[in-house]
Amino acid sequence: MVRGIGDDCAILQVPVGAHLLVTTDLCVENVHFRREWHPPRSVGHRCLARGLSDIAAMGGEPFACFLSLALPPELPQRWVNGFLAGLLRLARQFRVALSGGDIATAEKVTADIVVLGKIPAAAALLRSGARPGDRICVTGELGGSAAVLKRLYSGKKAPAKGSTCHFYPEPRIDVGRWLRKHKLATAMIDISDGLSVDLTHLCEESNVGASVNLPAIPVARRADIDLALHGGEDYELLFTVSRKAVLPARIAGVRITEIGEIRTKSAKGPAVRSVDSAGRLKPLTPAGWEHFAKI
Amino acid sequence: MVRGIGDDCAILQVPVGAHLLVTTDLCVENVHFRREWHPPRSVGHRCLARGLSDIAAMGGEPFACFLSLALPPELPQRWVNGFLAGLLRLARQFRVALSGGDIATAEKVTADIVVLGKIPAAAALLRSGARPGDRICVTGELGGSAAVLKRLYSGKKAPAKGSTCHFYPEPRIDVGRWLRKHKLATAMIDISDGLSVDLTHLCEESNVGASVNLPAIPVARRADIDLALHGGEDYELLFTVSRKAVLPARIAGVRITEIGEIRTKSAKGPAVRSVDSAGRLKPLTPAGWEHFAKI
Repeated sequence: MVRGIGDDCAILQVPVGAHLLVTTDLCVENVHFRREWHPPRSVGHRCLARGLSDIAAMGGEPFACFLSLALPPELPQRWVNGFLAGLLRLARQFRVALSGGDIATAEKVTADIVVLGKIPAAAALLRSGARPGDRICVTGELGGSAAVLKRLYSGKKAPAKGSTCHFYPEPRIDVGRWLRKHKLATAMIDISDGLSVDLTHLCEESNVGASVNLPAIPVARRADIDLALHGGEDYELLFTVSRKAVLPARIAGVRITEIGEIRTKSAKGPAVRSVDSAGRLKPLTPAGWEHFAKI
Repeated sequence: MVRGIGDDCAILQVPVGAHLLVTTDLCVENVHFRREWHPPRSVGHRCLARGLSDIAAMGGEPFACFLSLALPPELPQRWVNGFLAGLLRLARQFRVALSGGDIATAEKVTADIVVLGKIPAAAALLRSGARPGDRICVTGELGGSAAVLKRLYSGKKAPAKGSTCHFYPEPRIDVGRWLRKHKLATAMIDISDGLSVDLTHLCEESNVGASVNLPAIPVARRADIDLALHGGEDYELLFTVSRKAVLPARIAGVRITEIGEIRTKSAKGPAVRSVDSAGRLKPLTPAGWEHFAKI
C-alpha cells in the first residue's frame, strides 16, 4: 500500500504483470445476519469472508479491503468494536490491509465490503472454462452453515462445536491459489448461494450441463442432502478438472471430493441433473437459501 | 477492463507505471437524499459524483466503478431504472465502466459506490502538501447546493434553474487532472462536507494553519456566506499553490478564485481563521452540514 486512510482516495500499487481482482459484497442486518443470533465478531468475520471467498474462487491473492459501514445511532460502541475485531482478525490472517471506506448512519446495520486481489495476467480461474467430460469437485463439506441456520430458525441454540462453519467460515484462499498455480482447474466458483445455484451459474457461463452424483456429496455433520445441495454460505470452492488430471485427496489441508461430471448442454431440459444411488436421474433445480428473508 | 460483471470478481488492468486510486462512498435514504425531494436520476448521479469528486481531488483519472445497492422490496422498478440511468449517464460522460457490484434487500435505499482511478506513480495531489505562504484557491462557487437544500427543508420547491449544482453536481475531474499535469497545486481536497470542514482537514494533514479572506469567497447565487463556508456537497476543489505560481483565471472552463493563505500552525488557537472586510480575525470553526439528519 502506498497510502491508506486519511486522504480523498487510497493509493495502491499493483505489481507489474499482475491483474487486479475486485469484488464487493453487501451484508444487511436481518437479511444476511441477525443481531440476536450472530455475535458482532461473527458478523465482521462473515462480512470479509464473503469477499475473500470471491478472490479465492478466481485463484487470486487478496491484498486490500475497504469497508463502508452504515450504523444505527443507538448501536452500542461495543457492538461496532466486536464487528471490527472479527473483520480485522480475518484480515490479518490473510494479510489484507483495511485501506479505506466510509461511514454513515442508517436504521439497520449495513456493511459493504470491497476486497482487492492480484493475480498473474491471464491466470484467473473463470466460471466459463468447464468442458464436457470434466469432473466436478468441491472442497470441504456442504450444508453445515445452513444446518446451523435451520436450528436458529427453529428457536434452538446453535451448538458451539460444529457451528464454526456458519459463524466463522474459512475462505479457501490457499486451495484456490494452489489450483491456479498447478493449472489443474478448468473452471471455478465459490459456493455462496448453494451448490445447486452456483453449479448452475458455472454451467451457464461455460455453456454446458452437469450431472451430480448424490451419494458422493460430502454432507456436513448435522446437515442432510437437501441442505448440502441448496444451503448457501458454505464458502467452499466448486471447480472442474479435466478427466485425466491427477488430483490429490487434500489441497492445503482441505479435503477434495469428486461429485459429478460436466455434460454437453442438452437442447431441452435442465442444465444440471442429479443421479441417486439407484442410478435415477432427476433435474437439480437451483434453489439456494439466497437470503434469510426468503426462507 | 479485462472482465467485468459475470464472474466471482471483476478483472482489471492498471497500466505499468500507474498507481491505483480507490474511494468508496455511501448514499443512504433519508440521510444523503430523500425520495420525495430527489428524483431517482439525481440520486444516481449524486452517488457516482461523490466518488468521482474524490478521484478529482487526487488529480486522477477514473476508469471503473462498482455499485452495491440495497433496495426495499416494494420500491418501484421505475425508481431503480431512473437511479441507474442517472448513474450510468455520468459514468459514460467520464468513461467509467460499471464493472460489478452486489444487490440485496433493505428497508431503506442504501447505495455504496466504489470508484477506481489511475494516476502516474507519485503524482497524486495529497492533502498533506500545503506549506505556510501557499495561496488557497477554490473552483466554481460555494454554498449553492446547501441553498437548494435549505429551500427544500423549508417546504419550498427548488427552482429548476439554479438547482443543478445540488441535483446534478459536476465532478471537477478535468481541473484536478490539469493541476496535476501542470504540477501547480501543493495540496488538494474536494469540498464535500463544507469549506470550513474540508479546509480544516487539509490543514490537519499538512500540519499548518490558514486564514480565509471572507470577501473573496465566491458565494453562489441564492446562497449566503454561511452556506458558502459551511454548506456541503458543492463538490468543488480546494487546493493550495505556492506564492509565486501563475494561475489562470479559469481551468478547464471553471472559474478559479483565491480565497486565503496557508499560515504557520499556531501552538494555541484555531487552525483556520477568517478575515472580514474590516480586517477582523475570527476563528473559522468547522461546521459542515455533514448529513441531512444532523441539520
